[in-house]
Amino acid sequence: MKGLGVSPGIGIGNAFIIDKKAMNIERKHVIDTDSEIKRLRNALEIGKNQLNELYLKTLEEVGEKEAQIFKSHEMMLEDDTFSSDVEVRIKNENINAEFAINETSDTYIKLFENIEDEYLRERADDIRDVMTRVIKILLGINNTDYSRLKENSIIIAKDLTPSDTAQIDKSKVAAMITEMGGKTSHAAIIARIMGIPTVVGLENITNKIKPNDFVICDGKSGKVLINPNQKQLKYYTQKKEKEEEVGNELKKQIGLSTVTKDGFEVSLSANIGTPRDVDMVLENDAEGIGLFRSEFIFMNRELSPTEDEQFEEYKEVLSRMNNKPVIIRTLDIGGDKNVPYIDIPKEMNPFLGYRAIRLCLGNIDVFRTQLRAILRASIYGNVKIMFPMISTMKELKDAKKILEEAKLELKKEGKSFRDNIEIGIMIEIPSAAIISDMLAREVDFFSIGTNDLIQYTLAVDRMNSKLSHLYSQYHPALLRLIKSIIENAHKAGIWVGMCGEAAGDPKLIPVFLGMGLDEFSMNAPSVLKSRYIIRGLKKKEMEQVAANTLNLENAVEVEDYLSCLFADENDSYLKRCKIRSKTND
Amino acid sequence: MKGLGVSPGIGIGNAFIIDKKAMNIERKHVIDTDSEIKRLRNALEIGKNQLNELYLKTLEEVGEKEAQIFKSHEMMLEDDTFSSDVEVRIKNENINAEFAINETSDTYIKLFENIEDEYLRERADDIRDVMTRVIKILLGINNTDYSRLKENSIIIAKDLTPSDTAQIDKSKVAAMITEMGGKTSHAAIIARIMGIPTVVGLENITNKIKPNDFVICDGKSGKVLINPNQKQLKYYTQKKEKEEEVGNELKKQIGLSTVTKDGFEVSLSANIGTPRDVDMVLENDAEGIGLFRSEFIFMNRELSPTEDEQFEEYKEVLSRMNNKPVIIRTLDIGGDKNVPYIDIPKEMNPFLGYRAIRLCLGNIDVFRTQLRAILRASIYGNVKIMFPMISTMKELKDAKKILEEAKLELKKEGKSFRDNIEIGIMIEIPSAAIISDMLAREVDFFSIGTNDLIQYTLAVDRMNSKLSHLYSQYHPALLRLIKSIIENAHKAGIWVGMCGEAAGDPKLIPVFLGMGLDEFSMNAPSVLKSRYIIRGLKKKEMEQVAANTLNLENAVEVEDYLSCLFADENDSYLKRCKIRSKTND
Repeated sequence: MKGLGVSPGIGIGNAFIIDKKAMNIERKHVIDTDSEIKRLRNALEIGKNQLNELYLKTLEEVGEKEAQIFKSHEMMLEDDTFSSDVEVRIKNENINAEFAINETSDTYIKLFENIEDEYLRERADDIRDVMTRVIKILLGINNTDYSRLKENSIIIAKDLTPSDTAQIDKSKVAAMITEMGGKTSHAAIIARIMGIPTVVGLENITNKIKPNDFVICDGKSGKVLINPNQKQLKYYTQKKEKEEEVGNELKKQIGLSTVTKDGFEVSLSANIGTPRDVDMVLENDAEGIGLFRSEFIFMNRELSPTEDEQFEEYKEVLSRMNNKPVIIRTLDIGGDKNVPYIDIPKEMNPFLGYRAIRLCLGNIDVFRTQLRAILRASIYGNVKIMFPMISTMKELKDAKKILEEAKLELKKEGKSFRDNIEIGIMIEIPSAAIISDMLAREVDFFSIGTNDLIQYTLAVDRMNSKLSHLYSQYHPALLRLIKSIIENAHKAGIWVGMCGEAAGDPKLIPVFLGMGLDEFSMNAPSVLKSRYIIRGLKKKEMEQVAANTLNLENAVEVEDYLSCLFADENDSYLKRCKIRSKTND
Repeated sequence: MKGLGVSPGIGIGNAFIIDKKAMNIERKHVIDTDSEIKRLRNALEIGKNQLNELYLKTLEEVGEKEAQIFKSHEMMLEDDTFSSDVEVRIKNENINAEFAINETSDTYIKLFENIEDEYLRERADDIRDVMTRVIKILLGINNTDYSRLKENSIIIAKDLTPSDTAQIDKSKVAAMITEMGGKTSHAAIIARIMGIPTVVGLENITNKIKPNDFVICDGKSGKVLINPNQKQLKYYTQKKEKEEEVGNELKKQIGLSTVTKDGFEVSLSANIGTPRDVDMVLENDAEGIGLFRSEFIFMNRELSPTEDEQFEEYKEVLSRMNNKPVIIRTLDIGGDKNVPYIDIPKEMNPFLGYRAIRLCLGNIDVFRTQLRAILRASIYGNVKIMFPMISTMKELKDAKKILEEAKLELKKEGKSFRDNIEIGIMIEIPSAAIISDMLAREVDFFSIGTNDLIQYTLAVDRMNSKLSHLYSQYHPALLRLIKSIIENAHKAGIWVGMCGEAAGDPKLIPVFLGMGLDEFSMNAPSVLKSRYIIRGLKKKEMEQVAANTLNLENAVEVEDYLSCLFADENDSYLKRCKIRSKTND
C-alpha cells in the first residue's frame, strides 16, 4: 500500500491502533436548559484545563511553537461567540449540550473546509479536535491511553490530532500511519520535527491492519507493508541499516571544509525558521545560516511582535551561531501566510499578490521596527540583511532608504549596531533575474530563491496538483536564468547564494557549482550530504557539465542527463560520486 | 467627482435618473399556501415571457452573445431546484411568495458574492436582476419607462442590469453613470460594445444628481461634472470636438500602408473575440486579425460547441476577412474563465493554474475537435493557428502532434483543408521567452502576449488593485525579454508579432518598431492611430530610441523618457509626432 510520505525514514514494528470509538451524539430533548448550559460551561472549563496541561507538556518536550497550538485551542474554547452560539441553540431548540456543540462546530468546520487555502482548510482539523475533546468530556469517554505504548510501535490512526501527537512518547514510536492529513497537517509537521517516519492519506488503513500486526512503513516513498514476507523484511531492514550507515558515514564530514577536489571552496549554509532550529544547524555543521525566515516570529500571534521581542530572537540566533554568517530575510508574509494584525486583502491570486517587501513598503512601521531590531542585534554576531520579492530597482532603493533611516534613528538614540552589515536581496522573481546586472550595483549579495523563481518563470503554482508535471527545477529556462544571475553578480563583484530547495538537490549541486555559485543554503539535514558531494567533484569538470546541461531542451532531458552522471541514492553516492559516462543507471 | 471609466468618450447632456423604488418586501403570514404557490408559478411564467422578449429584442439590436444573457436568466427561472426551494419555504413557513423568493435568492447571492473570482462574483448581479424582476411582477411594480428618454440623455442609476441596458435606445444616450459595477460587469461590457461613454463605481451618485441636471461624463478618466461652469463646459466641448476631429483625421489613414518614413513595413492587425467583431476590423482597415480569441465560442454555454458549430464561426471570420491573415488562438480557458462542461478545479492561484494549452492537452477530445474545425475552415481564407500559454518545448511538440493527428483523420475522411497553415505560439510565459531560441525552431511565428508576460515576469496580478503601482508595461525586464524574443525569432528566420495591450500603446510602438517587431495587433479602434504614428517615424531612429530605453533602470523612467519623446494625447500627436528632445513636456 502506498500513501503520502511526509516524514522520511523507515519504521519497522508492531501496530498500535488508535481506536477512536465513534461518538454517539444523540439529539435529546432538554427541558431544564439552564442546567444543561451549566453542564456545557463545566465541560468547557475541564477542556481548557486539559489543554493547558498539554501546552505545558509540549512546551517542555517539543517547543514553544508546537505548544502554541494548544494555547490556540484553549482560545477557541474561550471564544464567547462560539459558546453563546451553543447556548442559544440549547435554549431555543431545547437540546442537549453535546448535540448543540456538534451542530455549531459543523457549521464552523464546513466554513473552513470550503476554503481553498490548504493551510486554512486544515484548520478545520483543529476545530474538530477541540470540539471532540469537549464532547468526549460531556459523554464521559476517556481518551486513548498512550501509556500502553510498547517499544517500536507503529501508530495507526484515522487521524492524529495535535492532542494525540503531544501525548505520544516518541522514544517508543517507530513510525506513524494515518488515513487523513496532508503535508502541512499538524501531524505531519510534528512528525518531521520529532523525526518519526510518517505516512498519511492511506484510506481505510485502520480496518486493514489489526493490533500487533507486523508493519513496515517507509516515510519517504509512502509505502506501507503489513506482515511482510522474509524477503521484504530483509530488504527494508537492510535499507534501514544502510540509512543509518550513511548517516554515520556522513557524520565524518563534520569539521571538514566544503571544497572541491580542485580546490574551489564554497559556503554551505542552512535555512531556519526559528531560533530553536539552530540546534540542527550546529549539529549538521553548517557554516552559517543562509536564510532565517523571520516571518515565523510574526505568525500565530494576535499582535505584531515588539522591537524588543524581535531583538531577543535575532540576538539568540546570532549569539548561538558564534560569528558565523546569519542572513535574516525581512518579513515575508502575505501570499499564503497571513497575520491578524496586518490587513491583507483576500486575493484572487495570492502568489501574485501583496506580500513580502510589497507589504513591508506599504506597512513601513512594521518594517522599520524589524530593521531596528535586526540592527540592534547585529552586535551579537555576523548578521546580513536580505529583502524578499524584489521585482524593481525602486523597491530595493526604497527598502535601503528605510534601513538608513532606522540606522539614523538608532544613532540619535545612542543605540549601538554594526555599521558594515552586508545587504542582499532574494532573486525569486523573473524581472529581478533579468535586471540582476542593475540590482547587483546596489547590494552586497544575491540569494536565488528557486521555489518562487520556478513558479513565476513557468507560471505554475507549485501547490497545484494538476500541474505537478510542469513544475520542475530542471527546466532549461530556470537554469539559464540562474546562470545569468551568477554571471551578473560576479561581473559586479558581489557573491551569490541559493536558498531554494534546488540548492540541496544532489543532481543540481554539480551544475550550480559549475556555474560558479558561491553559497548553497538548504535544510540542515542535507548539509553533510551536500558537503560529501561537493568534496567529490572537480569545479573545472562541472563547468562542462553545466554547459552540456544548458544545451538540453526539456526538464526531463536535463534530469535524465544529470541522473546518469550523478546517482541520487545515498548508498550509491558513497561509492561512486564522480562523473560517469551516460549510462542507463 | 471621479469613478472608474469603463467605456471611453465624452458625453454631455441631461441626467435621466433611473429611480428604482426600494421594493418593500414584507413577510406576510399565508394560510392558503397552495394558491400562494400558484401565484409564484404564474409570476415565474410572466418573467420568462418578459425575458424571452428581451432576448429577441437584443438578438436583433445587439447580437447573439449579448442576447444570451437573457436566455440564461430564463434558465434560472426554469431551474427546478430554485422554484422548489421557494415553494418549500412558502409551505413550511407559511409565508408569501415575494418574501420566500427574497430569502432564497439572498442565500444564492451571498454564495456568489463570497467568491473571489470577479467574473463569478458579478454573476450575483444576474441573480439579483432576475429575482427583482419576479418580485416586481408579484408586487405589481412597473419597470422603468425608457420610452421617456430624450436625446442626449445621461443615464444615472444605482446599477444597470442587463435588462436595463437592453431596453435603452442607444441613439438617445450620451453617457451612462452607475454607483455599482466593475470593469467586467455586464453594463460595462455592453457599454463598450455600444460605444457609450460610461463611468461606474460612483458612490451615491443617484442622490447627488437631480433629474435634468446638466452633466458631463468622461468615460476615459472617469470624471463626472454636475452642472459645470462655462469654463468647464467649454473645455469638455472642445475636448469632445477634438476627439471627433482626430477621429475624422485618422479616417484618412484608411487604405494607406503601414510603413515608416524610411520604408520599413509592418503588419497592423486587430484582436477579436467573436465573428461580429469583424465589422470593426474592416471599418478600421486592419490588415488582418492578429488574435482571434476562440474561447468566446466556448463560454456561456451548457455544452461544448460541436465541431460543426465551431467550423461555422471560423468560416464566417475567414470568409469575411477575404484572404487577409487570421490568427486563431486555440482555446484559452481556465484561469478566470471557466465553462460548465470541462472540469476545472477551483484553484488557489488560477493565473498560475490549469488553463489554456495545459487544459487542452489534458482534454484532448476538446482540443482535437477545435483543431479539426479550424482545419476544415482553413480553405475559406488565410488562417494561422496559435497555441497559448506554452511554457515548455514538450507542450509545443505535444500540441503539434495532435494537430498532425487531426490532419490525418481529416485526410482519411476525405475532408479538405489547407496543408500549408502557419503554426505559431503565444510568448506570454517567462520560460517561453527565455527558451525562445529553441521554440523558434518549431514554429512559423511568435506572438508576444504582453498582458500575461508582465504578470508573470513581475509576479503581479494585474487585477490586484493593491499592486497597480508595480504592474507596468514599461518595466526594463519586460522590454529586455521582448528584445530577446524578437532577436531569437529573427535568428531562426521566423516573424514575430505582439497581441497584448502594449502593442497599441503610442509610447511603446516606437520602441517595438526599433526592436524590429514585425506585426502589431490591437483593439480595432487603435489601428488607424497606430498607423498614423508608425507612418511618422523612421525605423533607424527608433533603433536608437529602443537602445536608450533599455539603459533605464525603472518603469517610471522609461515611461517618462518615452513621454518626452512622444506625446500621447491625440491632439498633440497630430501636430508633433516626431522625435523631440527630452523636455518636460
